[in-house]
Amino acid sequence: MEEIIKKAFIESINNIRRGDKEEELKKIQEKIVNAKKIVVATNNQKKFKVIRDIMLRVCNAEIKMLDIDTRFADLTRMPALTKGLIALDIEKADLYIARGRLGAPGSGSMLVILDEKGRVLTASLSPSSVIHKEDIEERIKKELIEALSRIGISI
Amino acid sequence: MEEIIKKAFIESINNIRRGDKEEELKKIQEKIVNAKKIVVATNNQKKFKVIRDIMLRVCNAEIKMLDIDTRFADLTRMPALTKGLIALDIEKADLYIARGRLGAPGSGSMLVILDEKGRVLTASLSPSSVIHKEDIEERIKKELIEALSRIGISI
Repeated sequence: MEEIIKKAFIESINNIRRGDKEEELKKIQEKIVNAKKIVVATNNQKKFKVIRDIMLRVCNAEIKMLDIDTRFADLTRMPALTKGLIALDIEKADLYIARGRLGAPGSGSMLVILDEKGRVLTASLSPSSVIHKEDIEERIKKELIEALSRIGISI
Repeated sequence: MEEIIKKAFIESINNIRRGDKEEELKKIQEKIVNAKKIVVATNNQKKFKVIRDIMLRVCNAEIKMLDIDTRFADLTRMPALTKGLIALDIEKADLYIARGRLGAPGSGSMLVILDEKGRVLTASLSPSSVIHKEDIEERIKKELIEALSRIGISI
């Protein structure tokens, strides 16, 4: 991963970068499919179950949830991302999956998948809940499927 | 805005927060529709034009682009967001619109709208370019329309 990212950085510095490359995408897919341990940054059993059930269809990982409350992330600029980083700092895993508010209150939600160093591998967004009025578990399911599909992992 | 956010924060602290609220969404919509000046964090004329043309359908703002290269944001954890923050730090505007890579190389793209203090108001994502193979201007157009629609602004 480090080598692939370094190549991408050098392309940017040299002003010859032209978007994502096949090998970068493959590497991200590999990291997800080969994950041995995944931590879901929630202490909500229902949300956890939705995410676990989908992830078990793409990888063979031990999947656990956090045993602490992550709602204080809501006082930060990007709550979903912050939840993921909280999980990263207190658990050892190959992937961290977090779901929460995208940004300011009213900005809708984000689901994000981080790797073992906290790099953003993929994500997906939902409209503000005032707008979609959908069941939250159904929404999370769609978000995770979309987050995976946008990097070429279909369920 | 500050008052609305403070209320949301207090709800989170008191553990009574139940998702986005109507007034929060309305405030975000207001900020976008009433923007007087918008900076697009790109120095690419074509991408700028796509974004400007759509924004002029929802607000009556002066819209300008950056005159510096933002590609060094590609060496950061969240390049699209970083481009927006670069624009925020060097221009004075009501809104900043940035578009770039979501996270790690291979993670696809993000379009994000920040307010005058750098808060994330909305965003949208596209699959990795290896996957979608779509014309970039068409893609940006869809991203901006989606970013607006998820907070209730339809074009």
